[in-house]
Amino acid sequence: MSTSTLAAPAAGLREGAFGNATGLVCRECRATQPLGPFYACQECFGPLEIGYDFPAVTREQIEAGPKNIWRYQPLLPVPADIASSPNMEPGFTRLLKAHNLGRELGLKNLWVKDDSGNPTHSFKDRVVAIALSAARELDMKVFACPSTGNLANAVAAAGARAGMKTVVFIPHDLEIPKVVASAIYTNSLVAVRGNYDDVNRLASEIAGEEDGWAFVNVNVRPYYAEGSKTLGFEVAEQLGWRLPQQVVIPVASGSQLTKVDKGFQELVSLGLVEDTPYKIFGAQAHGCSPVSAAFKDGHDVVRPVKPDTIAKSLAIGNPADGPYVLDVARRTGGAIEDVTDEEVRDGIQLLARTEGIFAETAGGVTIATLKKLVETGQLDPEAETVVFNTGDGLKTLDAVADRVGPAATIDPSYTAFTAIGLV
Amino acid sequence: MSTSTLAAPAAGLREGAFGNATGLVCRECRATQPLGPFYACQECFGPLEIGYDFPAVTREQIEAGPKNIWRYQPLLPVPADIASSPNMEPGFTRLLKAHNLGRELGLKNLWVKDDSGNPTHSFKDRVVAIALSAARELDMKVFACPSTGNLANAVAAAGARAGMKTVVFIPHDLEIPKVVASAIYTNSLVAVRGNYDDVNRLASEIAGEEDGWAFVNVNVRPYYAEGSKTLGFEVAEQLGWRLPQQVVIPVASGSQLTKVDKGFQELVSLGLVEDTPYKIFGAQAHGCSPVSAAFKDGHDVVRPVKPDTIAKSLAIGNPADGPYVLDVARRTGGAIEDVTDEEVRDGIQLLARTEGIFAETAGGVTIATLKKLVETGQLDPEAETVVFNTGDGLKTLDAVADRVGPAATIDPSYTAFTAIGLV
Repeated sequence: MSTSTLAAPAAGLREGAFGNATGLVCRECRATQPLGPFYACQECFGPLEIGYDFPAVTREQIEAGPKNIWRYQPLLPVPADIASSPNMEPGFTRLLKAHNLGRELGLKNLWVKDDSGNPTHSFKDRVVAIALSAARELDMKVFACPSTGNLANAVAAAGARAGMKTVVFIPHDLEIPKVVASAIYTNSLVAVRGNYDDVNRLASEIAGEEDGWAFVNVNVRPYYAEGSKTLGFEVAEQLGWRLPQQVVIPVASGSQLTKVDKGFQELVSLGLVEDTPYKIFGAQAHGCSPVSAAFKDGHDVVRPVKPDTIAKSLAIGNPADGPYVLDVARRTGGAIEDVTDEEVRDGIQLLARTEGIFAETAGGVTIATLKKLVETGQLDPEAETVVFNTGDGLKTLDAVADRVGPAATIDPSYTAFTAIGLV
Repeated sequence: MSTSTLAAPAAGLREGAFGNATGLVCRECRATQPLGPFYACQECFGPLEIGYDFPAVTREQIEAGPKNIWRYQPLLPVPADIASSPNMEPGFTRLLKAHNLGRELGLKNLWVKDDSGNPTHSFKDRVVAIALSAARELDMKVFACPSTGNLANAVAAAGARAGMKTVVFIPHDLEIPKVVASAIYTNSLVAVRGNYDDVNRLASEIAGEEDGWAFVNVNVRPYYAEGSKTLGFEVAEQLGWRLPQQVVIPVASGSQLTKVDKGFQELVSLGLVEDTPYKIFGAQAHGCSPVSAAFKDGHDVVRPVKPDTIAKSLAIGNPADGPYVLDVARRTGGAIEDVTDEEVRDGIQLLARTEGIFAETAGGVTIATLKKLVETGQLDPEAETVVFNTGDGLKTLDAVADRVGPAATIDPSYTAFTAIGLV
């Protein structure tokens, strides 16, 4: 069944509420259902994703759009007037040519996609912006999420700007900076006695019991996940409408990696880029590497683990999109690798010293994995490569605080200065 | 003497090293001298600024440029090929329509220019990018600054990416986060026993003793300062090539405010915007408000003060551009106001809760001043107004850490959740 012959959207939706999206499609059995606050297939309980009937879209049309993710509105499940609604205006972050890091690692043609420039300094602003639009169009009353960090910041900020009631659930023992950077936006931050899994379970329970709650990563997840496609769109556009030959992407739930692939495929199918081969590589921390382990063992299923790593934003022991990540890596000829916490710290420092980008631990995972992939010959050093930094070092200072510091402490005199031998 | 008849640039400079800049002009006596590593007038010791001979520049030309400050290359003292040199690619940050904050304050047409989206999350990336280009073109060997925070982060990052030897001087008792967010980029961070004034004096001494050191805010300051014009350029372009009627800008050294004015004037003189009247307002923290005090007293000179405020990035007791700030505010019909530290904290929270932007203390000063200017009738509530947020709340968490937090801490059960009355 083509997505263009899907059933009409649920009653009460305004015309064009989801742009060119036509319905929800099961990623397992391909059964379809109308657009609505649904995330599981009615036939097989498989996860749903968005189906579209795309019109012709030109590069010029996109380039004339706003300098944020809404330039890709025709390719997202959002209405045509999305740019004028109150939202965070995320995206179109820097794609930096990384001469220094490339030289250091022996890569001829390396780029860093730096998503720390987003409004709350992680890629989560992208996915949350789409979830916010869905919550609005579905006439939901409360905007919410369970989270331990970046997602909480993004949801609380976007909800505040949109003037929507926003409730964010966090584990009770979270670090103060992460609490402050969410609580600054909302009076409805709820601490839960338990770990992230407990918080997550509570969120699912509330989503089931209460009407009108949009948990961004639970019941509006199909919309939310589409936001990650914009990372793929931007990379291609910023390269001059061309797909890179290799990409290295961090894997938490795995959604981001699979959606970058989906984004690339859509650009090809719309004729916006040439259909050139690309390989997608995934990066995990060794202390939470269920997808990497499955990849190396040649398994199709991902066995859950109990996370133990400093890369907390990637610490999902039972990643929802794990099997799809394996599919993408294998289909494109990529791989999934993992690195130790010590390598993560090295990765953060390496990126900072070579390119002036201070990444959070997730970025350290990705840079360290990039290095390992080159060293083990899994990555072609001649091929054009893009590595993703998805978060900001200011949020995970502790990871490197004991490694860096002043070279010297001196008295305020020229003599004292010359004595330390910097000139 | 017109700037187009200035002496030829200093020997050894490559053709077009400074774009359309033609020389250095004294802001006091208007004497001119060639482009070089100079910051004080040879005639009267007054501060120097850049003179230009601008060619015709069109809106289309600018709009076709990169999505960063280099789109304004013809209006900056940088070479035509600047975009391809290794740099941080700062600028073109969000200009957000602030419906909620406007409604809260009784302003009909309010915008926030949010510069926390810059690479190291403050407007300093703009000025440092121009200083870096000057250092390179003047063939200087070391890139340096004295700083207590944002400037240190920006210089260390830009120097790392440019592959230039970079030395950053900070007071020895700086908060750990600010130390880490600079030391992550460089091995040459130097802690100095003393306060910021001691560090600053040491920097000037080194600049005088050593050849080839580019202290961004000392001996290449005329170039550095031009970077702030891009804030004015962007606001005008993002409004659809139009000047706002009112702008509210924080005042530390005062350079930013005067350069936004210079930027507006240049856009008018080039015919890029209509010559419509605008008023420029300055914002200071009461604990360091020498310019505000002079404005209110009707003085032309600014009496230095010893700073005592939580807004440390604005804590310059003897602001170099103070008198010029007074000139701009008086000429345009604006004003300079100041607010208490408690109002600063309120301002941070107000901006976060209404627009989803987490500002550093300097942003809190500006928002609180905006509020006070409306309440005291100094700002026209009907006029189009732009308020600047120049830094990021993640760098000054302590200012609000004891004010915000979870609404409740609950057990992980639906019953416990319903008991707190959020639904």
